[in-house]
Amino acid sequence: MTIRSSLTIVLAAGEGTRMRSNLPKVLHSVAHQSLLAHVLGAAPQGTGTALAVVIGPDHQAVADEAKRIRPDALIFVQAERLGTAHAVLAARKAIARGVDDVLIAFGDTPLISAETFARLRAPLAGGAAIAALGFRAKDPTGYGRFIVEGNRLVAIREHADASNDERKIDLCNAGVMAIDGRRALAILDRIGNANSKGEYYLPDAVGVANDNGWESVVIETSEDEVRGINTKAQLAEAEGVMQTRLRKAAMDAGVTLIAPETVFLAADTVFGKDVTIEPFVVIGPGVSIADGTVIHSFSHIVETTLGKKVSVGPYARLRPGTSLGDGARIGNFVETKAATLEAGVKVNHLSYIGDATVGANSNIGAGTITCNYDGFKKHKTVIGQGAFVGTNSSLVAPVKIGNGAYIGSGSVITKDVPDDAMALERSQQTIREGGAARYREMKSGGKKAEK
Amino acid sequence: MTIRSSLTIVLAAGEGTRMRSNLPKVLHSVAHQSLLAHVLGAAPQGTGTALAVVIGPDHQAVADEAKRIRPDALIFVQAERLGTAHAVLAARKAIARGVDDVLIAFGDTPLISAETFARLRAPLAGGAAIAALGFRAKDPTGYGRFIVEGNRLVAIREHADASNDERKIDLCNAGVMAIDGRRALAILDRIGNANSKGEYYLPDAVGVANDNGWESVVIETSEDEVRGINTKAQLAEAEGVMQTRLRKAAMDAGVTLIAPETVFLAADTVFGKDVTIEPFVVIGPGVSIADGTVIHSFSHIVETTLGKKVSVGPYARLRPGTSLGDGARIGNFVETKAATLEAGVKVNHLSYIGDATVGANSNIGAGTITCNYDGFKKHKTVIGQGAFVGTNSSLVAPVKIGNGAYIGSGSVITKDVPDDAMALERSQQTIREGGAARYREMKSGGKKAEK
Amino acid sequence: MTIRSSLTIVLAAGEGTRMRSNLPKVLHSVAHQSLLAHVLGAAPQGTGTALAVVIGPDHQAVADEAKRIRPDALIFVQAERLGTAHAVLAARKAIARGVDDVLIAFGDTPLISAETFARLRAPLAGGAAIAALGFRAKDPTGYGRFIVEGNRLVAIREHADASNDERKIDLCNAGVMAIDGRRALAILDRIGNANSKGEYYLPDAVGVANDNGWESVVIETSEDEVRGINTKAQLAEAEGVMQTRLRKAAMDAGVTLIAPETVFLAADTVFGKDVTIEPFVVIGPGVSIADGTVIHSFSHIVETTLGKKVSVGPYARLRPGTSLGDGARIGNFVETKAATLEAGVKVNHLSYIGDATVGANSNIGAGTITCNYDGFKKHKTVIGQGAFVGTNSSLVAPVKIGNGAYIGSGSVITKDVPDDAMALERSQQTIREGGAARYREMKSGGKKAEK
Repeated sequence: MTIRSSLTIVLAAGEGTRMRSNLPKVLHSVAHQSLLAHVLGAAPQGTGTALAVVIGPDHQAVADEAKRIRPDALIFVQAERLGTAHAVLAARKAIARGVDDVLIAFGDTPLISAETFARLRAPLAGGAAIAALGFRAKDPTGYGRFIVEGNRLVAIREHADASNDERKIDLCNAGVMAIDGRRALAILDRIGNANSKGEYYLPDAVGVANDNGWESVVIETSEDEVRGINTKAQLAEAEGVMQTRLRKAAMDAGVTLIAPETVFLAADTVFGKDVTIEPFVVIGPGVSIADGTVIHSFSHIVETTLGKKVSVGPYARLRPGTSLGDGARIGNFVETKAATLEAGVKVNHLSYIGDATVGANSNIGAGTITCNYDGFKKHKTVIGQGAFVGTNSSLVAPVKIGNGAYIGSGSVITKDVPDDAMALERSQQTIREGGAARYREMKSGGKKAEK
Repeated sequence: MTIRSSLTIVLAAGEGTRMRSNLPKVLHSVAHQSLLAHVLGAAPQGTGTALAVVIGPDHQAVADEAKRIRPDALIFVQAERLGTAHAVLAARKAIARGVDDVLIAFGDTPLISAETFARLRAPLAGGAAIAALGFRAKDPTGYGRFIVEGNRLVAIREHADASNDERKIDLCNAGVMAIDGRRALAILDRIGNANSKGEYYLPDAVGVANDNGWESVVIETSEDEVRGINTKAQLAEAEGVMQTRLRKAAMDAGVTLIAPETVFLAADTVFGKDVTIEPFVVIGPGVSIADGTVIHSFSHIVETTLGKKVSVGPYARLRPGTSLGDGARIGNFVETKAATLEAGVKVNHLSYIGDATVGANSNIGAGTITCNYDGFKKHKTVIGQGAFVGTNSSLVAPVKIGNGAYIGSGSVITKDVPDDAMALERSQQTIREGGAARYREMKSGGKKAEK
Repeated sequence: MTIRSSLTIVLAAGEGTRMRSNLPKVLHSVAHQSLLAHVLGAAPQGTGTALAVVIGPDHQAVADEAKRIRPDALIFVQAERLGTAHAVLAARKAIARGVDDVLIAFGDTPLISAETFARLRAPLAGGAAIAALGFRAKDPTGYGRFIVEGNRLVAIREHADASNDERKIDLCNAGVMAIDGRRALAILDRIGNANSKGEYYLPDAVGVANDNGWESVVIETSEDEVRGINTKAQLAEAEGVMQTRLRKAAMDAGVTLIAPETVFLAADTVFGKDVTIEPFVVIGPGVSIADGTVIHSFSHIVETTLGKKVSVGPYARLRPGTSLGDGARIGNFVETKAATLEAGVKVNHLSYIGDATVGANSNIGAGTITCNYDGFKKHKTVIGQGAFVGTNSSLVAPVKIGNGAYIGSGSVITKDVPDDAMALERSQQTIREGGAARYREMKSGGKKAEK
């Protein structure tokens, strides 16, 4: 079997005015990725694949996002908006290079899968001119209908033009299409604009092919996969569909999600065995979680590596660059950032550990803060193994705490502490007998404030 | 067109025993407002409108709430509970004053809209005696049915009294009604109590009107809008309907809600353009959010003004009286209260800023706390522009930190710090070489405790 | 009426490979209890009841869990897996002891209720040989169908063996069954394995009874109650059903749940009157909440007793052994553990109170931390009544703060403070005029770091 070459053309020129945003529509995100990135991620990649993205004028940011994901992406600008077939032909030069399969997708339909692109290409290998993606609509109103004769797709009828009988058809046009590369320009160039808006519509490709005696076929998929996004409400729905997919995949892989509907995952989250995630957890991109680890409620984790049997939260915020060794424990109201905590480290309460490394089995007391920023630069804190940092300590970076060192509570540590040393920054505790009573007497001349 | 005068009578005398609460039913809240407040907010207001609230005996709190919202509200007490028509007649004196339209609404039906009241009044202007609000019930069992002949509503039949055929009717009585003011007493006074409970039922008004040859009409609305609240479960359902409305309105206005079902809004939340709200956010009353601002997960915001391109949270708690200037950043585990933070201020970690002002571009270090309360009174902290407050500092109010001042980490600041000065409250760091090793040796006579 | 004796046999030998976990299936949890614990909790208990649990080889942990809940549980090991009837007969010795009713239940069906077990037993008292539990399946595909003649259940037909007509039956086999104790072995021993897998199937008991002229009857229940759990997704569904039950029960008892779907309860949570719980709250086992108490958003509470009119959160984490007196207030980013806080105590911000008692009306300032752990042992902090602890204080346990004592902000308290004394650990505040300006000048040679 020879591998067929492909060109995927992604139409991404829409303004998205109904999003009521200054951001081009395809740059809005679902599951921490732009809509465009989702489509490009599903498009064929590797040897023999080419990619073209059709953008609107003044949408350099869309081109940049395309290039970020696919440095080989060809960018075409659709200067005027004269319909979807017109948009496809903005990429005429790419089509003219000649490929086996031309795939046409939409930058605002992010839930499409690589498998669906593959299914669309198969009929072309079998001789079809066009494979059009369809779905059974719960409510077909407004969608183009697939007019089928036997196994042939003979036309795509817009809702407005459909007869009463045709409107009963629930097999609707998803817009996505594969066209045989050798015949693509012949088909696309013959699409006319004799309609009320004077635009060139891609679905008319099917009628053109049929007129030529070329076969078009239907590939069916679910309505969820081809949801287009025009509004913020539809964006939220797509996020919901994506999260449902991610949660199900996690549970199928054995992750215990106590209340899956309250856990937000990223597409790239990596799970070990016997991982448990409690309700109300947000996991952003770049997170991997090893065997036996538990994420407690109200935790927020981004670009972090968690070892085995780690305990996180509740209320742990692990920011990018965090790495936790096996058996480490991060407790409540603790923030980490660019921090490597080795095996068995405990940071249980109310701490900020940033730009730091902490050696194995060290215990960081409640309220400890690494003062990584001096108002000008960020500096590093290095804590050795088996160290003990007392509560409410400030570790003023750059600073090094040795292996087995012990820092007294409430200390501001500005100088390095050697291995096994005890360090303290503290005054004498003074007690004024009856002092509180006298203070109250003095103050209670004033009216007691409401807390 | 002359403006018709109106009297809205809100029946709010119910005990609400099924709520299992000591609070009168109509004082329970949906979206941070009492049920009564929602109804009064939807009732006609302004010139030519009057409002009467019928309360139960010993329900002064209900009267107070009514007066709080509508100082002109007339309060009537229904001493005995003899049915809805009897309750309406408790406001006889208000009706007798004479108005064009008498509207009858219920204090426990908070989802009704001003537009529905307007739609009910329209037929009266056209000559109808009564306009009754109806809805298509998913399950009509238990509801009164609208018996219609042509366009006329001829009776409202209680479920118990309905024939089998009548029970198939799904157009049900929502209770809310508009009555022509000139004929209102004539109708209401003729409602009898010849029924099993010996009570006077408002729906019988339709039969009375029909007997007089006066027209009654139906105005239809959705079942959601007329949900009555008798139990805590129904209260929660109404909150759900209200939140769904608020979320949809926010998204339609362009707000990005990544997971709308996890964001709680207030009816008065004001949004700018390109605002993003992550999952798990609670917004209470009195919040306005300017363009480009991002609210991260697990944030809780009440009576707060957020400038442009502000970043809040995750885990930020902004309490009443907080105002954040453009570009300000409030990070994790930070609480603010009665605090004005000017443009570009950063409070990124584990801080409490209360009764304070912070000048533009100042940086408040992790663990900083404004000690606003001395056990007797609250005092103010004033921080200038471009100041830098080191970590774990306590600012003992009243205290003033000058422009460009620098506070060393771990300091307790009790005296004012001049502009551009450096202030420090700290002892010498002492290091005992081998001290930790000796301490461990001493301690390890005892058994190591489990953390 | 004589009380009938019973033996409940719980089949708990499954590996649960589809859970993709090293934990035996029946030890996974729903609402903080193992699946097995739920079933054992619903099984008949007290005088005249016996319990047998059939476990797989190498599943000692299952036996331990059974014994933990029912110390009288008899444990039987099913060495080979030859079908459900074979599993029941692993408990042959228990059946042979002779009881009135033999109940057969499944360790992975945790939603079954005690009332259903009682309903199953009733027909045996009336002479039936078998009472089989059935449910109306939304989609019966795959389930065994109940073949009924008149009032008799004559067979349970596996889906694979069912005729087209039989497949239309929606009354399906839940698996759970009660068998008359005197006839149980006679029935079970006659079940054959003449089927494609060569296994002994419990549903065949009905056919055997019928062949003997013994009556079998159907007891119907809801599909939710008999959900079996084979996957993590089904485990999450069962948790959802259980939480919906718990939330509804709480609301019926008068608890205000503003957004019930965002509140997680435990089966043993105890509520007083007029309790309010805001969105996003997690309540674990062992929590009781007295009248008028409010739990604010983002709180996490386990094994804690809350007095009347207590205010908790937002962002409060109350760990096991916390007890809050009437009117106490725990604010944001506060953790308590093994702590008794008497009436009127306030801990409003950013604190950790562990292994401590705090006397009535004391005020614990923001950032206060009880240093309960010295790296070796846990120690206690005792704070008297009416004390005031300043912000950012560290109380190094063991330590005692007297009644009415006052601790200055930023102090590390290592020695006991007498009643009404004022204690302070602090240096002089030093101010270097222009010091910050000079520092900036020095530093700004370097490039300003991005925060």
